[in-house]
Amino acid sequence: MLTDGLFSDPELRALMGAEAQLSTMGRVEAALARAQGMRGIIPADSADRIAKVARSIALDPTALVASAARAGIPAQAFVAALKDACGTDQAFVHYGATSQDIQDSALVLQLREALMVLEERLAELIEELRSKADAHADLVLPARTRFQIAAPTTLGAKIAVWRAPLLRHLERLSELRPRLLNLSLHGAAGTGAAFGPDAAALRADVARDLGLGAPEVPWHAARDAIAELGGWLSLVTGSLGKIGADLILLGQSEVGEIHAGTGGGSSTMPQKCNPVAAEALVSIARLNAGASGTLQGSLVHAQERDGSALAVEWEILPDMLIRTGAALRLALDLSRSLTPNPRRIAETFAADRGAMLAEAAGFYLARHMPRAEAQRIVATALSDMASDSRETLTSALRRLQPGHDWTNILAPEQNTGPGNDINMGGEAT
Amino acid sequence: MLTDGLFSDPELRALMGAEAQLSTMGRVEAALARAQGMRGIIPADSADRIAKVARSIALDPTALVASAARAGIPAQAFVAALKDACGTDQAFVHYGATSQDIQDSALVLQLREALMVLEERLAELIEELRSKADAHADLVLPARTRFQIAAPTTLGAKIAVWRAPLLRHLERLSELRPRLLNLSLHGAAGTGAAFGPDAAALRADVARDLGLGAPEVPWHAARDAIAELGGWLSLVTGSLGKIGADLILLGQSEVGEIHAGTGGGSSTMPQKCNPVAAEALVSIARLNAGASGTLQGSLVHAQERDGSALAVEWEILPDMLIRTGAALRLALDLSRSLTPNPRRIAETFAADRGAMLAEAAGFYLARHMPRAEAQRIVATALSDMASDSRETLTSALRRLQPGHDWTNILAPEQNTGPGNDINMGGEAT
Amino acid sequence: MLTDGLFSDPELRALMGAEAQLSTMGRVEAALARAQGMRGIIPADSADRIAKVARSIALDPTALVASAARAGIPAQAFVAALKDACGTDQAFVHYGATSQDIQDSALVLQLREALMVLEERLAELIEELRSKADAHADLVLPARTRFQIAAPTTLGAKIAVWRAPLLRHLERLSELRPRLLNLSLHGAAGTGAAFGPDAAALRADVARDLGLGAPEVPWHAARDAIAELGGWLSLVTGSLGKIGADLILLGQSEVGEIHAGTGGGSSTMPQKCNPVAAEALVSIARLNAGASGTLQGSLVHAQERDGSALAVEWEILPDMLIRTGAALRLALDLSRSLTPNPRRIAETFAADRGAMLAEAAGFYLARHMPRAEAQRIVATALSDMASDSRETLTSALRRLQPGHDWTNILAPEQNTGPGNDINMGGEAT
Amino acid sequence: MLTDGLFSDPELRALMGAEAQLSTMGRVEAALARAQGMRGIIPADSADRIAKVARSIALDPTALVASAARAGIPAQAFVAALKDACGTDQAFVHYGATSQDIQDSALVLQLREALMVLEERLAELIEELRSKADAHADLVLPARTRFQIAAPTTLGAKIAVWRAPLLRHLERLSELRPRLLNLSLHGAAGTGAAFGPDAAALRADVARDLGLGAPEVPWHAARDAIAELGGWLSLVTGSLGKIGADLILLGQSEVGEIHAGTGGGSSTMPQKCNPVAAEALVSIARLNAGASGTLQGSLVHAQERDGSALAVEWEILPDMLIRTGAALRLALDLSRSLTPNPRRIAETFAADRGAMLAEAAGFYLARHMPRAEAQRIVATALSDMASDSRETLTSALRRLQPGHDWTNILAPEQNTGPGNDINMGGEAT
Repeated sequence: MLTDGLFSDPELRALMGAEAQLSTMGRVEAALARAQGMRGIIPADSADRIAKVARSIALDPTALVASAARAGIPAQAFVAALKDACGTDQAFVHYGATSQDIQDSALVLQLREALMVLEERLAELIEELRSKADAHADLVLPARTRFQIAAPTTLGAKIAVWRAPLLRHLERLSELRPRLLNLSLHGAAGTGAAFGPDAAALRADVARDLGLGAPEVPWHAARDAIAELGGWLSLVTGSLGKIGADLILLGQSEVGEIHAGTGGGSSTMPQKCNPVAAEALVSIARLNAGASGTLQGSLVHAQERDGSALAVEWEILPDMLIRTGAALRLALDLSRSLTPNPRRIAETFAADRGAMLAEAAGFYLARHMPRAEAQRIVATALSDMASDSRETLTSALRRLQPGHDWTNILAPEQNTGPGNDINMGGEAT
Repeated sequence: MLTDGLFSDPELRALMGAEAQLSTMGRVEAALARAQGMRGIIPADSADRIAKVARSIALDPTALVASAARAGIPAQAFVAALKDACGTDQAFVHYGATSQDIQDSALVLQLREALMVLEERLAELIEELRSKADAHADLVLPARTRFQIAAPTTLGAKIAVWRAPLLRHLERLSELRPRLLNLSLHGAAGTGAAFGPDAAALRADVARDLGLGAPEVPWHAARDAIAELGGWLSLVTGSLGKIGADLILLGQSEVGEIHAGTGGGSSTMPQKCNPVAAEALVSIARLNAGASGTLQGSLVHAQERDGSALAVEWEILPDMLIRTGAALRLALDLSRSLTPNPRRIAETFAADRGAMLAEAAGFYLARHMPRAEAQRIVATALSDMASDSRETLTSALRRLQPGHDWTNILAPEQNTGPGNDINMGGEAT
Repeated sequence: MLTDGLFSDPELRALMGAEAQLSTMGRVEAALARAQGMRGIIPADSADRIAKVARSIALDPTALVASAARAGIPAQAFVAALKDACGTDQAFVHYGATSQDIQDSALVLQLREALMVLEERLAELIEELRSKADAHADLVLPARTRFQIAAPTTLGAKIAVWRAPLLRHLERLSELRPRLLNLSLHGAAGTGAAFGPDAAALRADVARDLGLGAPEVPWHAARDAIAELGGWLSLVTGSLGKIGADLILLGQSEVGEIHAGTGGGSSTMPQKCNPVAAEALVSIARLNAGASGTLQGSLVHAQERDGSALAVEWEILPDMLIRTGAALRLALDLSRSLTPNPRRIAETFAADRGAMLAEAAGFYLARHMPRAEAQRIVATALSDMASDSRETLTSALRRLQPGHDWTNILAPEQNTGPGNDINMGGEAT
Repeated sequence: MLTDGLFSDPELRALMGAEAQLSTMGRVEAALARAQGMRGIIPADSADRIAKVARSIALDPTALVASAARAGIPAQAFVAALKDACGTDQAFVHYGATSQDIQDSALVLQLREALMVLEERLAELIEELRSKADAHADLVLPARTRFQIAAPTTLGAKIAVWRAPLLRHLERLSELRPRLLNLSLHGAAGTGAAFGPDAAALRADVARDLGLGAPEVPWHAARDAIAELGGWLSLVTGSLGKIGADLILLGQSEVGEIHAGTGGGSSTMPQKCNPVAAEALVSIARLNAGASGTLQGSLVHAQERDGSALAVEWEILPDMLIRTGAALRLALDLSRSLTPNPRRIAETFAADRGAMLAEAAGFYLARHMPRAEAQRIVATALSDMASDSRETLTSALRRLQPGHDWTNILAPEQNTGPGNDINMGGEAT
């Protein structure tokens, strides 16, 4: 698509694509044959030959589309092609396994690679945000709640809020990996019957070879780890979408306090600088949020295997991963290019005339008088400001409550809290 | 993807793909230049040359991906390439328009083609179902409610239930078309200012040329017709998903009353016949249902144009159309191959031993005695059947209430209602 | 809930609530009994008594919760209670009908009322927006695309964009009504068998009595009209969510060009004015969009009746209607209180220094020189503005291209297009 | 609603209801006042009185609905009412906090209770399923894949597949708790400025008092833990939905191998036994899946606080929890009443005539001849069975390949794999 530069990612697309799927299914069949050869379940020399073919076979995905459609599961088309390629050894190919065993095992191997890429990008983004947060720890700008200027904060604190959930996402990823990265090798009915008495040991062999877990209970029809992964991807892109939304708003013509990204020019309006990458983060968050709900629906998986529930996963999950990769790439670009505009920030403070310090003024005064009285004085000051556009909170309070160093008391940088060197919330490892 | 044989569709994919998008944007720019030439807004000879180039330019989509990403909207990359190709005429290319005008107008032109394909398939499916319903109007089989055998119905009546919503979908399509197939030509701010005083007339010219409507109020930011279309696609695939679910259940090993599709063999179990196409209908229904919800979310479209809301449409809508095309194709295949299995249907009736006629027996008896007493007798008969597996409802009632022609009274074909030649609910035109 | 003041609506809640559901099911049973009495299907005097009881019975919903849970469908609990109340006539209560007939028929009667309320509010909102659009047809303010100031438009034009889809929603409502407002009276298997040979005529009688359509094909398992309604509700709230999003952004501290709603104060920041109602419109849009997708999923309705698909409708649809009612109420409040702030609008134009007229300047100049040269001059002017904050587009162009009346040429009110008295897009009727 | 017996849960509803919310907000304000009194931030005696009032105040939720709507956040209405009740101490109520601090902190306290209830039910269900799996470890019945009988398995193995994800859900719950159960106490701008220099220490005090975590980075606008919780609830109900789907299918009229639940009778068909509770599990899974996607969308949370994103959480999360509670209750009932029907299972095996052992026969023969030859023989046997309905796989193979003990070789109980005492996948603790 013409939008691939924003919403796709070549690395993730390759990892989740048809070629990768085929070659990874080959790896699984190879590992199965090898393990069955070692245990004497199939002849050792057949096993070697099958393993060799399975690891090196290079099939054209388009040639398999029709047979995959007839079978209703790509693995079956692959297995048929692999058997053809194995000639007289074909009787020992895919021995005792069911198509879904191969497809699911290949899937988690692909996911393992894809998640490593995502994890690296996430860690890199976390580091980039840490360095930006450190660099701008003292840069005061307004916090905005419900689209209104609220009170001062720092850019460092804002970035810390962007960064904290990302650390938790790394944690979540570590936790979900062992639930997800598991071999499927349980045969047609999930009982492993066709593997013979050593089914569990064989499963352990293959799992060890592939670096996967070897659960005893089949996950053919228990898809919680897949749905959990979809949820995780949506959590990641949702958190990046929040960064995107903030950058869009901080970059509005009327705000312009932060610039990030190279911006998109308009085809007709030369003065514009569209927040293209930030908008894409929001779009991806919305796309993954919806997709995650649809994927959750596939937990209602009938019987020992349910083709309609499975196919929903096939159609949704790769796009979610690719979009997440794209979002991390865009977020990293945005973070690196993030630049505050001190002039515009100063203009915001000037236009606000101190109103955002109203809460601070109230709390300060309340240390010297009943709080209700303090609040009344502040209200009067705000009302004076409303009727006279040259009045500031400082000038109004200086008049209403002389004898305090209002300039200093209401200096924004004095009112960003003890957390203006806000702890970054833990380490990315 | 390896699953394209089930979930994709070459015709729809071509209509909604990048090449089609580029050439259709060319058609829009050509129509704009021509109309502006006629009105003297741009020089007539420039207009001719631009129109010629715009209609014939063949751009490589991959070459535009990077610039589309920078711009945040593919049309802008296209316009830049078109200007390049127009040499000294480039000043009059895309004159007064905004990128989104071109992209949205091209979109609805693509949609017009795609909807004609979908409509044809839908009409064909409706006809096929009518012919099947007619052919099987008298074929009695059990209705099942809440997964329990309920009472007799006919295959014709079942198919009429599948078909009735499809007729309504055709109706809905006719209704939504004029809301959807509208030119966008309102310029940067939606006011048409850059087109000069004749903006509305120019819009009418271009719309006439392209066969689109020409709304005065811009739809840059009012995306209801797009969301409505997504809803329609989901309605269509939802109704097909219901057919799929029914066929899956009618084709279960334990039921086997209806066979449809060529079925998928198992990689390891030779006796199986998987309902591959029927399952795909269910999957597509679920995918489109979720996508439709996500698309609805894009109605919250900020200001005069909102890149993050727009891009959600771009990423979702083509897949929805393609999947709908695939579903209609699969449903047509299933309808054509739909074959009842009289032996299995007879076995179902035999195994039921008349229990599904219990309601009918009760209503019959109630004509001769108080209904409560009638119901007690039927309950006794059912209880007798439960304790003696050779007992049927007929044999039990013959014993409990002799003197009635129970064989005839409880004949399933006598109990499919006055609607067993159920009206097909209207004409597909 | 504590948030009911924003997200609920007493009128809609009453119409869709348990009491209304029970009494409406009574109306349906009454109409059925009456029609069956007239046709001699049940004794005329029983029919009269049943109709009387059914119309007046006042059941406590909480007393039916347990039996509804056992039955899996509320109508069954209601029918049992109604039979109890009818004493010796009970054999003729609900004669030949199935629970879902009653529940679905009552549902559409409730929906009919609810949709009339929604339609009235929608029409009122459309009128209110028309009057606001008229009042502010000439009020110039900036259009913003992709969160950047783009070019001038008018408040009238903005409101026309809000209003145009609402007119289409009225149109859609008229179209969907005949598909939705249909009697269900097809009996256990959908064949009408238990109603006897006059099933269709009986259905017509009851439908006439209740003012509903009488489709021949049962809609027990064809739920397209319900899903279409959900889509419509989401379209409505989505369009209102767009108004909400715009009002939030127009009311930001840094913009403040439009004020609407009474605003929410902060518990601690006296200067704030939170866009509470506008935010609620966005929330409701998101809630309904998601719910609409979930509801679409229920089109996959197995067999002649599917309890799990049905219950999804029961749990989702009332909330969607209630929220839509709330959104219309909030939108009406916002429209009525919508007030532009000319001072803030003037400040926006001042701060922009004419940059938003860059496109207009380019087009103007292109009438006197090659367009490329025109664009270069404008680019120079913008660049001059960037380096000197006192420079405006007018002052820069006056210097770069003297001899034109730049003040007038670049006056925002001269650049809102021929559509500044933008047609309101049709009539609400 | 009339469906509350299925889709609601009194215990969870109480925990998540308005009264609980109000009283829990009181607990938070009390803890804040106490901690501020101890640190001398507010007068100690005021603190005591405030804490007492805050813990005991019993407000009528309906009386707060209007002010909550004006404020756009219930906590603000609560705080106003609390201040009223505190008379002259009111200046020290809610000192330095923002409404969302109170509401979010109360929310996680409510969630803590609700999650304990859900965890207990989940653990109880896991135990119940373990005992059922043990009891039926050797009960052979067919596995079904893609709605076709595949090969034998055991009821114990089926139940193990239901149970395994539940164990993982307990694990996930333990992992998410520390991310979720955190105090919010960061003040208007998230900086804690109004709490003075001891903000972090104060937060730790209050957190300790309430038994919550005390993160340094505010989570006002970082809602990942809420979205994660929504995902978890949907995972739980999705896994239960799978149990429901299986029970529906195992209880179909044509299958009847397992009965669970008391079943719903029909209003008109006495022989029916509707799978009411199992269907409700599927409905709840679909409702929560959709809701989870909508909730994920709220991660796109603008700025320091975003009312429209927050309110989506408020409207969705309580229902998700309540439905999850309902689903666990229903699943527990179903598990307890789960009863196999050996006669129907035997009938399934009889009707299958050994076809489901085709894979096993093939693997057995392949130990004595080339696999391709083995498969040809099995195919011949299946074909013989197709043409002669008295033929079984045993009888056919006895004829085609005499000299093997086919009765024993193809005995279903010999073909449920080494995993027929399938490990239950770990311990619930």
